[in-house]
Amino acid sequence: MIGLGTMGRNLLLNMADKGYDVTGYDKDPHMVDLLQEEGADLKLKGHKSLEALINHLNSPRILMLLVPAGKIVDSVLEELCPLLSPGDLIIDGGNSHFTDTVNRDIALQKKGLHFFGMGISGGELGARFGPSLMPGGDAEAYRHMKPLLENIAAKVKGDPCVSYMGPGAAGHFVKMVHNGIEYALMQLISECYGFMKTVMAYDNKSIAQVFKDWNSGALNSYLLEITSEIFNIKDEFSDADLIDMIKDEAKAKGTGMWTSQIAMELQCPSPSINEAVAQRDLSKFKSLRSALAPKHNLEANPEIKIDIEQLKHLYDFSMRSAYAQGMQLLQQASAAYAYHLNLADIAKIWRGGCIIRAAFLEDIYTAYAKDPELPHLFAAPHIQESLHPLLPNVRKVLSTGILKAYAMPMALSALSYYESLHTLRLPSNLIQAQRDLFGAHTFERIDRAGTFHIEWQKNKP
Amino acid sequence: MIGLGTMGRNLLLNMADKGYDVTGYDKDPHMVDLLQEEGADLKLKGHKSLEALINHLNSPRILMLLVPAGKIVDSVLEELCPLLSPGDLIIDGGNSHFTDTVNRDIALQKKGLHFFGMGISGGELGARFGPSLMPGGDAEAYRHMKPLLENIAAKVKGDPCVSYMGPGAAGHFVKMVHNGIEYALMQLISECYGFMKTVMAYDNKSIAQVFKDWNSGALNSYLLEITSEIFNIKDEFSDADLIDMIKDEAKAKGTGMWTSQIAMELQCPSPSINEAVAQRDLSKFKSLRSALAPKHNLEANPEIKIDIEQLKHLYDFSMRSAYAQGMQLLQQASAAYAYHLNLADIAKIWRGGCIIRAAFLEDIYTAYAKDPELPHLFAAPHIQESLHPLLPNVRKVLSTGILKAYAMPMALSALSYYESLHTLRLPSNLIQAQRDLFGAHTFERIDRAGTFHIEWQKNKP
Repeated sequence: MIGLGTMGRNLLLNMADKGYDVTGYDKDPHMVDLLQEEGADLKLKGHKSLEALINHLNSPRILMLLVPAGKIVDSVLEELCPLLSPGDLIIDGGNSHFTDTVNRDIALQKKGLHFFGMGISGGELGARFGPSLMPGGDAEAYRHMKPLLENIAAKVKGDPCVSYMGPGAAGHFVKMVHNGIEYALMQLISECYGFMKTVMAYDNKSIAQVFKDWNSGALNSYLLEITSEIFNIKDEFSDADLIDMIKDEAKAKGTGMWTSQIAMELQCPSPSINEAVAQRDLSKFKSLRSALAPKHNLEANPEIKIDIEQLKHLYDFSMRSAYAQGMQLLQQASAAYAYHLNLADIAKIWRGGCIIRAAFLEDIYTAYAKDPELPHLFAAPHIQESLHPLLPNVRKVLSTGILKAYAMPMALSALSYYESLHTLRLPSNLIQAQRDLFGAHTFERIDRAGTFHIEWQKNKP
Repeated sequence: MIGLGTMGRNLLLNMADKGYDVTGYDKDPHMVDLLQEEGADLKLKGHKSLEALINHLNSPRILMLLVPAGKIVDSVLEELCPLLSPGDLIIDGGNSHFTDTVNRDIALQKKGLHFFGMGISGGELGARFGPSLMPGGDAEAYRHMKPLLENIAAKVKGDPCVSYMGPGAAGHFVKMVHNGIEYALMQLISECYGFMKTVMAYDNKSIAQVFKDWNSGALNSYLLEITSEIFNIKDEFSDADLIDMIKDEAKAKGTGMWTSQIAMELQCPSPSINEAVAQRDLSKFKSLRSALAPKHNLEANPEIKIDIEQLKHLYDFSMRSAYAQGMQLLQQASAAYAYHLNLADIAKIWRGGCIIRAAFLEDIYTAYAKDPELPHLFAAPHIQESLHPLLPNVRKVLSTGILKAYAMPMALSALSYYESLHTLRLPSNLIQAQRDLFGAHTFERIDRAGTFHIEWQKNKP
């Protein structure tokens, strides 16, 4: 293991726990000491130089990198490659951009080395006791890793949360989409929190209870679980609840943005992921918000009561929409990049270990297991049936929120995505007419094939 | 002029009209013939070989490229460069991605050539009779072009719609954002059309009249003008109105997508441009929509009447939000790329010639002319005052639309963008708490500086 930060260290401890003879290196000697300390009872060894680590291993070596994505990966690879022998295998377990993984794969193949991009989700605890693993690359090389990965992965109903994703950068692509869904879900949960606080005037204790209730049933998920816990934590510096002392500027590491950018490249609509990204960015305009907020028009609105069951329906619906958008992106990427992704498998390995694990993934698994060619998650009969009865309350909550000056961007986008996909005739014919009028871009017709252009100016009545 | 398609040919005719001695080349000889034909009364010459064109010109030559963006630009440059002499100037007038312009500028500088990226908007008629021009590059080289460009550009109140944008790829960047705003406005207009048709049951004649009325007042704009005309055009193959025969799949050439992608890169929220891009993509899922639409839950809703004045307010508000998002992106890009953009100048040259020309640009111009450091268009007092009274009807129309299963994605995003920017405390503090809990990403506090991390598991009550 190269890189003994939170993820690397815990993953190594996890492997040692399972009886593997493992060894780790970090350029920061304190991290090496920390590893030795935390793994004192285990069969593992830390090294303070890369050479020592490499010399300690027999060929063919299996090395895993868990270092920050971007240039650091390249500089580690540069330092590492001259020390390796042909046939050695390097696994990049970080959140690398999938296009970087493609380039590194090509470069390392030329040196006779095997390269593997593997998404890992589950945070600190996941890494330590069972993450969800999304490995992609050479299928032959995967066979060597399979037993170990299955051993350290989370288990759901006895099945390990790891599966071979596909060739090339498939593993990192799937992990990126996982994170895109994660962004959308976190934004949705924060909007529900805001609704309860702002529109319904709930206190933190009640909000904690609501999330706990939601989590106890069919909506069970890791994010709801931790959210409920968060609202019960007291601040260490004051009498307040900690949540009220945390600044409302959301940081991001870029994986959500990547997802949105690639979705656009692939012409796959992912509006709720886009909104999650935009809202994190918007949250950082703190001084502007402070200047504008006092001037806000919060006119009194008729009292419209929303009960918590209605908000639950909104959460349920929008959450399903977020997963549907992510699955659709995987499907389009699979075709575009020839990943041959198995969507059922992906839903299956996301059921445990990872941040977006949720009971709903069982339904997604069923949908794609039954029909791998399903054109969209919404097209699966049991998904359709589950969404249908939620719609009236979704519309009710969102329209009420709007009247009360509480617009929920992610949830609104989730609804309009659904409505648009269920619309036979969108008003986009007008866009085609405009484009042909000002740019001679041509249009298609509903009654015959081909492209058409008319001289709009000459046809004026 | 290299490239005699719609834009190149018309721009050249425009120059010849103004008395310039111009010459053009296209690899397609038919286009050269077409130029000679259309410009029979003018002093211009067409060439059927690139060598002939170059030999015809004295050094330092000024060449303009109007060829499709992407690889074609590079292949033309490759063919062209060996024929040129140091000091010659090449202007790329196409919709090139601004990062390509940066790279080409560097490469051509090394060859002693000057390179200029210039955005041109106005479509066919704009090019012929006066476009809006957004040139960027070497300020010294601009001095040579200035008289010609000012001569051929559209004029508003005597001012030419051209101004030096800034160094490097500034011109193409500004044009890209222009197109991003254009995408958002076109999506908005199509949503208003859909609302009138679906929710208000208006016929095409009434819709044409509404857009005409809107266009006749303070909302005057090119896009409203042409939209009104579109609804009056009869189909040539049937008794229907043409608009009803056009397929509702909106194509795109990518400039809107680029705007969204870069906005995310610069962490600048542009949700309405994102929605416009996503909705064009979504419109192409025609077979999926056809399969899902019959299963849609369109429950009957209480009759809530919306009058057309309320919809006008929605249009007015969302239109302003689209421009505001674009201006904000220009501001952030200017800082990030050291373009030193003059936002007042940009608003000024967009008042005429281009696709997004509108009376509202006068207000934008005033805002940035008065305060070049304005943190956001919404912060200008006269803009704030214009938006304020619109809000109740915006909320009314959107909430009614939602209840009637007609969600307007662009307009919804425009409202939630506004509401979020006017919110002192967003629920994003929860996102920071979640990130720290599962990934030890730390959070900031409202009462003291620094970053904080707590052991959430140990703090459980």
